[in-house]
Amino acid sequence: MRTAVITVGKEVLTGKTVNTNLATISRMLNQIGIDTNRSFVIDDQKEEYYKILDFIDEELIIFTGGLGPTIDDISRETVIDYFGVDASINQEVLKGINEYFDQIGLKMDDTNNKQAYFPKKSVILHNDLGTAPGVIFSKGEKTIILFPGPPHELLPMLKESIEYLKKKLKIRLYSKGFRMVGIGESVMEKALIGFYELHPNVNIAPYASVGEIKYVFTSNKIIDLESAMNQFKKKFEEYIYGDLNDTLESIIVESLTKKKLIISVVESCTGGLLAGSITSVNGSSRVFAESIVTYSNEAKVKYLGVSLNTLNTHGAVSIECAYEMVDNLYNKTISDVCVSVTGIAGPTGGTKEKPVGLVFFGINYKGNTKTYKRIFNGNREMIRKRATIYALNLVRKELNQL
Amino acid sequence: MRTAVITVGKEVLTGKTVNTNLATISRMLNQIGIDTNRSFVIDDQKEEYYKILDFIDEELIIFTGGLGPTIDDISRETVIDYFGVDASINQEVLKGINEYFDQIGLKMDDTNNKQAYFPKKSVILHNDLGTAPGVIFSKGEKTIILFPGPPHELLPMLKESIEYLKKKLKIRLYSKGFRMVGIGESVMEKALIGFYELHPNVNIAPYASVGEIKYVFTSNKIIDLESAMNQFKKKFEEYIYGDLNDTLESIIVESLTKKKLIISVVESCTGGLLAGSITSVNGSSRVFAESIVTYSNEAKVKYLGVSLNTLNTHGAVSIECAYEMVDNLYNKTISDVCVSVTGIAGPTGGTKEKPVGLVFFGINYKGNTKTYKRIFNGNREMIRKRATIYALNLVRKELNQL
Repeated sequence: MRTAVITVGKEVLTGKTVNTNLATISRMLNQIGIDTNRSFVIDDQKEEYYKILDFIDEELIIFTGGLGPTIDDISRETVIDYFGVDASINQEVLKGINEYFDQIGLKMDDTNNKQAYFPKKSVILHNDLGTAPGVIFSKGEKTIILFPGPPHELLPMLKESIEYLKKKLKIRLYSKGFRMVGIGESVMEKALIGFYELHPNVNIAPYASVGEIKYVFTSNKIIDLESAMNQFKKKFEEYIYGDLNDTLESIIVESLTKKKLIISVVESCTGGLLAGSITSVNGSSRVFAESIVTYSNEAKVKYLGVSLNTLNTHGAVSIECAYEMVDNLYNKTISDVCVSVTGIAGPTGGTKEKPVGLVFFGINYKGNTKTYKRIFNGNREMIRKRATIYALNLVRKELNQL
Repeated sequence: MRTAVITVGKEVLTGKTVNTNLATISRMLNQIGIDTNRSFVIDDQKEEYYKILDFIDEELIIFTGGLGPTIDDISRETVIDYFGVDASINQEVLKGINEYFDQIGLKMDDTNNKQAYFPKKSVILHNDLGTAPGVIFSKGEKTIILFPGPPHELLPMLKESIEYLKKKLKIRLYSKGFRMVGIGESVMEKALIGFYELHPNVNIAPYASVGEIKYVFTSNKIIDLESAMNQFKKKFEEYIYGDLNDTLESIIVESLTKKKLIISVVESCTGGLLAGSITSVNGSSRVFAESIVTYSNEAKVKYLGVSLNTLNTHGAVSIECAYEMVDNLYNKTISDVCVSVTGIAGPTGGTKEKPVGLVFFGINYKGNTKTYKRIFNGNREMIRKRATIYALNLVRKELNQL
């Protein structure tokens, strides 16, 4: 089904807003095997809608934006009128909008009435997070979907529309995936040469971000999907940390909670990001005791009893320092797992022997200490992010005894 | 000058990549008074280029993507051929690409030659960060610009093109602005009623993000620009922390460095984000001593000597605890400024008396302690972000004695 996605709004054309809606819509369509053919951004002028609608020949036409109550919001009436389908104010929807206003303690005025103007034959996409409902309707061979612009209002409607399209087009698709860490996209792609061909009925797509990668598997045959995923899992087990809904932090907090373990961390170059990411998980206060950011040597000595001899002989960025930091933290706290990070995030501070990106890690799990050395590339922000993910992954592997 | 921006690439149409290039290009055009009229995303097929080029009537046509060396990268030859301008391999550009390959230690193969195919009359946009140069050329009344897809390669070329357009269109525009914190967009907009009308020659545009806002002023008359900015500054001085190149963190690190002061922080609900944001600034190790994340009550007692009486009577989320945390941190360290944060980030853990979003802050500057109470709205991530910005702003105000 060839698809056109049309975003309406001045804020996208002036660059005030990045058009994330296009990515959200296209990704979800792609997962049920529908390709976005072309995409457009237009201004909220009637003639702009008409020019584009005259131009496109796609069968599925999706608009986002321009459904609100203001005089500039003309998507609903303009598109419905363009296709000439029979439409009127839907009393049930009107009642719903009224109730929404009651709920948020405001009085509804007449300008909101138009938000209930819908084709008589249509699927109304209810909006629990705002006033403007979306709609799906047909004209001949064409299916038209109208979504509001705000991403959080669009998302539940998009999910509903995906279900509608799957039913209408008799698409039976299953979609699952893995989240992975500790392996790069290019290494993965090399390792996967020949793998895709073994699974012709399964769409396998990678999505990479700094330090992480996820693979989404989609198929209309659950047995093919599971077979591909099982083989994939066997091949890459040590890098897979969870399914698509997991995050590395949530996996760790869940694992610590189950095992009734307490974690504490001491960080230097990541400067609080490691603690920040663990504590981003709701409920982490049950398993996270404390974190110390020992940027200065003085703090390393005072809080952790790192020896002056180590600092003078090997420096703060050294395997010896990482070892003492984590070992002393373990001995000072009631924690079961402790992690230390010390390194050079740059852009300044590097030397030939100790370049920017050099990071040492220590982990102590129930009294046993291990240390690790890595050199990360990228700018300051990327090095800090990669070091944080690396440390989280160390914890995951230790907890799973990988 | 009516403008069309055309993004080429399957990765945008499948939702793998968010189209940030459109926002970057449009924002910079907007700042010199050029409006993006429409935008398109197309697949890298010759007929798709022709369909769109036949359709559009804009005078400025900007392409991004499809300039690389692979067989799928056809923007350059397709667009040049469509406009039928005289073109050939530019030997100087070819030499530059060769040198780039030498530099990164790779051998250039013939497929890269086509990246030097340019109209004889054109402005070549050199690429220091990749192999594909961009180009500006004209055909009749139309100006055509081709950029590569990777955002970091595009940006320097975009800046060069903006200068080219300013010269060609005789645009003399000045653009400056303020970054602000501690005031919301809606409050600002109310306060600015009537202000815009007083400065008809100045374009004033707000860009809001969680907890922060910036205002960009643009005008072709420097005297009008400065007059508007001076009046704006007088009105909102206490909320302005810097110009467009500053961040709240960089301002604080700069200010601490100048005054030769050391900062340390103790955080609970922000869980490391406050330390993480200060240490994101290169050179922060000179002014940042240490941070403790005392998630557990035990850690609050052990590291900071918060009294059990305070914890039992008032709880960890209280003005008393914020006071003791920061006061004891000040007494234990060699720091000149100390900050404490304790609160409830949610989504669970709130009560009627202490709702989710309640955060207490303490700041001790050279021995004087002040405390603050705030209730933030939003989800866990937003509350943590807002609390971090609030704490940074407390430091800024204290250092500036505001």
